[in-house]
Amino acid sequence: MNALGRHLLLELKNCNSGVLNDLDFLKQALLAAAKESGATVLGVDFHSFNPQGVSGVVIIAESHMSIHTWPEFDYAAVDVFTCGKTVQPEKAAEVMIERLGAKNHSIIEVQRGILLKP
Amino acid sequence: MNALGRHLLLELKNCNSGVLNDLDFLKQALLAAAKESGATVLGVDFHSFNPQGVSGVVIIAESHMSIHTWPEFDYAAVDVFTCGKTVQPEKAAEVMIERLGAKNHSIIEVQRGILLKP
Repeated sequence: MNALGRHLLLELKNCNSGVLNDLDFLKQALLAAAKESGATVLGVDFHSFNPQGVSGVVIIAESHMSIHTWPEFDYAAVDVFTCGKTVQPEKAAEVMIERLGAKNHSIIEVQRGILLKP
Repeated sequence: MNALGRHLLLELKNCNSGVLNDLDFLKQALLAAAKESGATVLGVDFHSFNPQGVSGVVIIAESHMSIHTWPEFDYAAVDVFTCGKTVQPEKAAEVMIERLGAKNHSIIEVQRGILLKP
């Protein structure tokens, strides 16, 4: 079956202490992930929370990538949603796992837009 | 099991003709979805594509909502990712299904951040 998009849902656990509350670090990580995957960045929007945590989204021409962090649990939820055949979402996943130093991770892939009669 | 976040993945099919390429309509729909769910909007970023299609994200204090449309297939992929107990992501899903006039839809819910030793 052909799908319009591939959506990777990353559960990143036991990440490096400190980085999950560092907005600039996380922004650079997600931009690097977009670049490594071959995506074209259209927009970037990151926010810090009090007392802790960061949310950020990178809109790409091929859909989006996002991150939400819970530093108190060394946990980050990362999404890599891409469409088209020129982008490699797995590359983005690898970058995020490595940059955040996630000692445990899981990835679910959801096919988006499976159209039987396109 | 307790999860930090609830992530609804909506597949909206057979949507109303015309609305899927209307950036302003889709932005207002996603903002209404955020409002109806009880979320606090922090940022909005929408983009149109040539020849067609719209991508948009609303960052909320409780995570994010996003939409990507394929007007040529009357299809939209919508994500509603929320954390905390004050937000009702189902309300956002209902708003999007109704506003886009999706005659067929499916919703997958993924629990994010299931931490056995929080």
